[in-house]
Amino acid sequence: MSKYCLGIDVGGTSVKLGLFDTEGNVLDKWEIPTRKEEGGKHILPDVAASVLDKIAEKRIDKAEIAGAGIGIPGPVDGNGVVKVCVNVGWKNVDARSDLSELLGMPVKVGNDANVAALGEMWKGGGAGYNSIVMVTLGTGVGGGIIVDGKIVNGSTGAGGEIGHIHIQDGEEDTCGCGNKGCLEQYASATGIVRLANRKLKASEKTSVLRGREVSAKTVFDAVKAGDELAIEVAEEFGNYLGRGLAAIAGVVNPEAFVIGGGVSKAGTVVLDYIKKYYIPYAFSGCREAKFTLATLGNDAGIYGSAKMILE
Amino acid sequence: MSKYCLGIDVGGTSVKLGLFDTEGNVLDKWEIPTRKEEGGKHILPDVAASVLDKIAEKRIDKAEIAGAGIGIPGPVDGNGVVKVCVNVGWKNVDARSDLSELLGMPVKVGNDANVAALGEMWKGGGAGYNSIVMVTLGTGVGGGIIVDGKIVNGSTGAGGEIGHIHIQDGEEDTCGCGNKGCLEQYASATGIVRLANRKLKASEKTSVLRGREVSAKTVFDAVKAGDELAIEVAEEFGNYLGRGLAAIAGVVNPEAFVIGGGVSKAGTVVLDYIKKYYIPYAFSGCREAKFTLATLGNDAGIYGSAKMILE
Repeated sequence: MSKYCLGIDVGGTSVKLGLFDTEGNVLDKWEIPTRKEEGGKHILPDVAASVLDKIAEKRIDKAEIAGAGIGIPGPVDGNGVVKVCVNVGWKNVDARSDLSELLGMPVKVGNDANVAALGEMWKGGGAGYNSIVMVTLGTGVGGGIIVDGKIVNGSTGAGGEIGHIHIQDGEEDTCGCGNKGCLEQYASATGIVRLANRKLKASEKTSVLRGREVSAKTVFDAVKAGDELAIEVAEEFGNYLGRGLAAIAGVVNPEAFVIGGGVSKAGTVVLDYIKKYYIPYAFSGCREAKFTLATLGNDAGIYGSAKMILE
Repeated sequence: MSKYCLGIDVGGTSVKLGLFDTEGNVLDKWEIPTRKEEGGKHILPDVAASVLDKIAEKRIDKAEIAGAGIGIPGPVDGNGVVKVCVNVGWKNVDARSDLSELLGMPVKVGNDANVAALGEMWKGGGAGYNSIVMVTLGTGVGGGIIVDGKIVNGSTGAGGEIGHIHIQDGEEDTCGCGNKGCLEQYASATGIVRLANRKLKASEKTSVLRGREVSAKTVFDAVKAGDELAIEVAEEFGNYLGRGLAAIAGVVNPEAFVIGGGVSKAGTVVLDYIKKYYIPYAFSGCREAKFTLATLGNDAGIYGSAKMILE
């Protein structure tokens, strides 16, 4: 019977690691730098050395560890192989086999956004649910889909790539993905700034947003203060995202949407604007879906990675 | 070791039944009428009597039968209970328990569109794949989502309700679901007729479609004959459906889309118009998805129901 599991979250600058008991209590967490040089070939050996040091320090017997889960910032195939991950310099890295050999324990590999969704469902804003859609509103719009407790990885690792759902015809700016009119262009932190700057330019309205640097935070602060132009921006954001999430509900019909990322720090006001538009766009059978805020922040990845290995 | 399984597909006018071996070869198939009177209370007893007659006639020992799967034209919860099914008059029918008791064997219950998807993946247009989206273009647009071999039923039985994804702002006609601008209003057989009639009214172009009753079939026949106005209708249909399927791909990233229903009888020309618009709207990682035609027709439901009980 295993007592422990390990969660690892590989990011572009640092790798987060967590030692958990199998109930999901974090016993220790720490970080190491991500060494991207030489095609990122040091990353997995660094991770393994750090993990083995930690369990030696804690006098934990390897036989008591269920294994390690690891989240990667890019697509992962069904065998735990990473074909390309520009964020860490990898090409054709068999992360599952390589790390498993280095650690001498079972390893599971997942995409970081999907793994974070699993973490939020285990111990965060999605706790108590079994089917959720996690939406991360940061620089982009990330998604993680969990159906009946399992990550939807997708046939090419693109499951949950909801930021690139086409939501607006006639857009002139190009999204990072090369398309035009992607959800991410309106509902990410960057998208909100774009919407606000467009509105500031097109309107003569006074607004606390004028003459200062606009961010998703300043927009939602202004919304809370009753700023009319900021409220128009929030309505537009809510319309795009509510419509997008209604489309997603028509596919997987989740119990709950868990909203995370920087934008979600503005709090429940964000959920209010999303729900306002989600409900009328959603199919009747999907309208009761719950909306919650993510609670694990940057730790969602280590929680989800650890949970992955317990499945 | 089971040798046989049963597939049952309940429709509004008849119930289709199939006896299969566990390899998926159909040994016999037959139909009985759907008696909807008195809240549909005769339906399951009629089904059970017909099944028991058949296995007596075939001298099959019940112990050799893995069980029966049954597809229902409405939402089914995770326990096989049908809360409301207007098509057959049911309210709060515990189809799994009731039929299992009547038959004396295990029963699984699913929504008919989802079950048909499983059937097409087992023995039809989706054979060889493990994750598909089945799209049924009939009076409405139905959907069935299979991820890693399992039906996505959804938390309230609304998984795969893709016909009601909002795809067009400013629509004036109301969809059967009460919303406006649903995919079904443009991509179903009925939707194609609507698009054609709108275009015939708005344009002066000569067309073989003028002065006769328009159907999805006449439209695609005219497309094949090079009729310019019909081609415009097909382009519009392809744009709506391609865009909708690209959004779905951003959620579940299937290996293949299997296109069935009356509209699909026009053949691969339908796939051509869908793919033409799917590819530019889809996220790069989803563009390689295959498009195939459903091949089982009205038998998809009995195949999928039978397969369900083998899982």
